[in-house]
Amino acid sequence: MRMIDGRTGIEVMDRAECLQALRSDDVGRVAVVEAGHPVIFPVNYALDGEHIVFRTAEGTKLDATMKGGPVSFEVDDTDRHTRTGWSVIVTGWARVVTNADDIARLEQLDLQPWSEHRKDNWVAIHPERISGRRIVATA
Amino acid sequence: MRMIDGRTGIEVMDRAECLQALRSDDVGRVAVVEAGHPVIFPVNYALDGEHIVFRTAEGTKLDATMKGGPVSFEVDDTDRHTRTGWSVIVTGWARVVTNADDIARLEQLDLQPWSEHRKDNWVAIHPERISGRRIVATA
Repeated sequence: MRMIDGRTGIEVMDRAECLQALRSDDVGRVAVVEAGHPVIFPVNYALDGEHIVFRTAEGTKLDATMKGGPVSFEVDDTDRHTRTGWSVIVTGWARVVTNADDIARLEQLDLQPWSEHRKDNWVAIHPERISGRRIVATA
Repeated sequence: MRMIDGRTGIEVMDRAECLQALRSDDVGRVAVVEAGHPVIFPVNYALDGEHIVFRTAEGTKLDATMKGGPVSFEVDDTDRHTRTGWSVIVTGWARVVTNADDIARLEQLDLQPWSEHRKDNWVAIHPERISGRRIVATA
């Protein structure tokens, strides 16, 4: 039986489906709060268990996560021709990974930044809540 | 002459390129702040001049915009095979469109919500800042 969101009529994805969807992609968007304003930026990410991990250089991204602030993370995949797709939203807390064993494990993940700039720091998002929705083709 | 971001080595898109990129897509992500936490959600959008417009039903999206809070909006297009792509980020303020003439104009835009749920309200993001970056193939 499929779950349907009563408010929107959209299919609700369970946690396992959400994690599977997160594993199927590698570009997502992180949102943080800076001085009361939302800041959003795309990241090339991977999963470390159920944690979303990405590399970052010094700057906005790292500054916000160093402060241990709340983050929101989003991934979607849409097909404009069939007007179908899915989106997964993760809310949680980010931290800079400092443990050497953790970093060594993350270095084994298939995650290379797309740009040439050095991105020496790993950030991990610990998910408090994972939700996903799917828009399926209608008759 | 192309502008290059000195910090990241990534190509900086000018405002005209950003607007052209925004017009080339129709799915973006909005981030707002709710009770100090960032909230991110995908939207099917269109451009009304330089304003980003989308439909919404009652709920989180509308509640936040009704309060006139700051928003961040992101669109990207990436190719995982060539590891190239672009992203455009808009920061500004959102408002619910209430003027009948404005609504009539927006109804003429080619923008239909993908889900079947009624989305009666139009929201417009007035951009304060538009920035874009492009990752090009490296030799």
